[in-house]
Amino acid sequence: MIDVKAILAKYSKELDRSIDLYLPAEKPDNLMDATVQYPRAGGKRMRPAMVLAAAGAVGGNKDKAIPLAVAIEYIHNFTLIHDDYMDGDEKRRGMTTIHVKYGGPTAILAGDALFARAFEVIAQLDTPDNVMRNVLKVVTRAVWDLARGQQMDVNNENGEEVSMDEYIETIRLKTSVLFAAGAAGGALIGGANEKIVNAVHEYAMLLGVAFQMFDDVLGLVGDPVKLGKSVGNDVRKGKSTVMVTHALKNIKDKGTMKEFRSVLGKINATEDEIQKARKIMEDAGSVEFAIKMATDYTKRAIAKLDILEKSEDKEFMIALAEFAMARDV
Amino acid sequence: MIDVKAILAKYSKELDRSIDLYLPAEKPDNLMDATVQYPRAGGKRMRPAMVLAAAGAVGGNKDKAIPLAVAIEYIHNFTLIHDDYMDGDEKRRGMTTIHVKYGGPTAILAGDALFARAFEVIAQLDTPDNVMRNVLKVVTRAVWDLARGQQMDVNNENGEEVSMDEYIETIRLKTSVLFAAGAAGGALIGGANEKIVNAVHEYAMLLGVAFQMFDDVLGLVGDPVKLGKSVGNDVRKGKSTVMVTHALKNIKDKGTMKEFRSVLGKINATEDEIQKARKIMEDAGSVEFAIKMATDYTKRAIAKLDILEKSEDKEFMIALAEFAMARDV
Repeated sequence: MIDVKAILAKYSKELDRSIDLYLPAEKPDNLMDATVQYPRAGGKRMRPAMVLAAAGAVGGNKDKAIPLAVAIEYIHNFTLIHDDYMDGDEKRRGMTTIHVKYGGPTAILAGDALFARAFEVIAQLDTPDNVMRNVLKVVTRAVWDLARGQQMDVNNENGEEVSMDEYIETIRLKTSVLFAAGAAGGALIGGANEKIVNAVHEYAMLLGVAFQMFDDVLGLVGDPVKLGKSVGNDVRKGKSTVMVTHALKNIKDKGTMKEFRSVLGKINATEDEIQKARKIMEDAGSVEFAIKMATDYTKRAIAKLDILEKSEDKEFMIALAEFAMARDV
Repeated sequence: MIDVKAILAKYSKELDRSIDLYLPAEKPDNLMDATVQYPRAGGKRMRPAMVLAAAGAVGGNKDKAIPLAVAIEYIHNFTLIHDDYMDGDEKRRGMTTIHVKYGGPTAILAGDALFARAFEVIAQLDTPDNVMRNVLKVVTRAVWDLARGQQMDVNNENGEEVSMDEYIETIRLKTSVLFAAGAAGGALIGGANEKIVNAVHEYAMLLGVAFQMFDDVLGLVGDPVKLGKSVGNDVRKGKSTVMVTHALKNIKDKGTMKEFRSVLGKINATEDEIQKARKIMEDAGSVEFAIKMATDYTKRAIAKLDILEKSEDKEFMIALAEFAMARDV
């Protein structure tokens, strides 16, 4: 059995140096401090690890993919900075968020700067020019889609009820596309042919959906201490997660439905009200449904890797998909 | 004598179609509406015109440079959207700004989306892969510098007094680099050698400084009706423009200095107070000094073009530099 966390930690160590290397200190100081804070703060590093694993799993040289792994991590961090500002979140991984510490304008600019730096790093990839161009195409498309997905999320959080299909499309755009661009980019750098690049891309798209769906589950039934944030915020925001959409369809009792709807979207709902809503969703089978659905996505993701020959990196990619569904944080 | 405005209008017409072409309608609607508003609204289109002129002036095919012209315009517009939000400006070219019309989160995302699309367009440039890579390098570096320059501007507007050299460095980063990336990119697509690319890059860097310096002058002594905004806002923000820095050094009378300082940075200064501050700066020779300095930059910019053979496009580039200094809007 592969120890995903141990491998992620090993990758993190390798990546930390490169993440610093590509963010040299320039002026002005406050922008630079704001720009490096999230990339240096760590996190699971699933996205960059996937870039390296994909390069290796197709038989390529993983070292050549390190700059892309860094770029994908910068892009992920740029979206977190802008997201935290949009959502008004004050803490991330125990740190004060950028807009609180440095002000809104600096949060916008630090995100923009990381975004720009990501593409500077891609421009310098040590690969043939045509490979670099293909990587650039898949990553730029992903960032365009990310913005679309985040806007759909904003619209959704504004209380607009959406169907399950629409919610999954939102997840695909706001989460999966960056996983997928990283994996496909890694495969491209590793020298894979189009068929393999596409399979790896699809694997990561499916994994991204499973990952986000399980994230939603953790955000309701997870351990607030381990998560480092309070649970039930999606309910407070009235967000149409898979669980909420399922519950709205499957709660049979009118009184229960009324009670559920009274908490949904109630931004200042108490811990007690959240626990009641959670119980209602559990009784309606909605949590179980979401876990089942995420498990299906994971299985479909892993099946896409059948095209690859056996290797340590392939095993890690399989384990990573399982990890998306078997984590407590 | 070349009619710069007429040529810019001609280029605009050609560009408008392409600007639309590369922004296809996708979901969600509110993000798309916010994304296309500024690019479609026109403006002087100096930056994209410079891309095309540079491609032509080095003997290349201008049509091949159209996508880059579009990308540079998207980047310019993305920075305007984020800037307007950061500054809290409510109007631009008579339109309601994005954050007022669609909310702050959509303004952030619309900027991000335009930024991403700019690089998607660059990824699809119809040029050899190595040329595309060189264009990408110069443009990504410019966007990184833009963020630095805007942060320096934010710091400056927060009342931090800066030296004239520091202010010019700010202008170089927040204005010149995008002009220069466009011009150098156009020259690269046009097939120019490194020496010519560098000369064109330097031309545009110098022109950018002259352009922004004269913009500051117009912002103080220009016609509010033609400008479409009130004058004196730099004074209200206490911004260290060349004029302000010169005045602070050259006002001899203590009472006058006290009066000047009392208006500088007074965010709610009346029209009357602004006119007094303006008169003080004029009497100290500060406006004249800034115009002289901008003129010098223009001359130095034009001299960089000596390396190019005579052509209509070269003449337009010369006229464009003169226009940066001889406009009322």
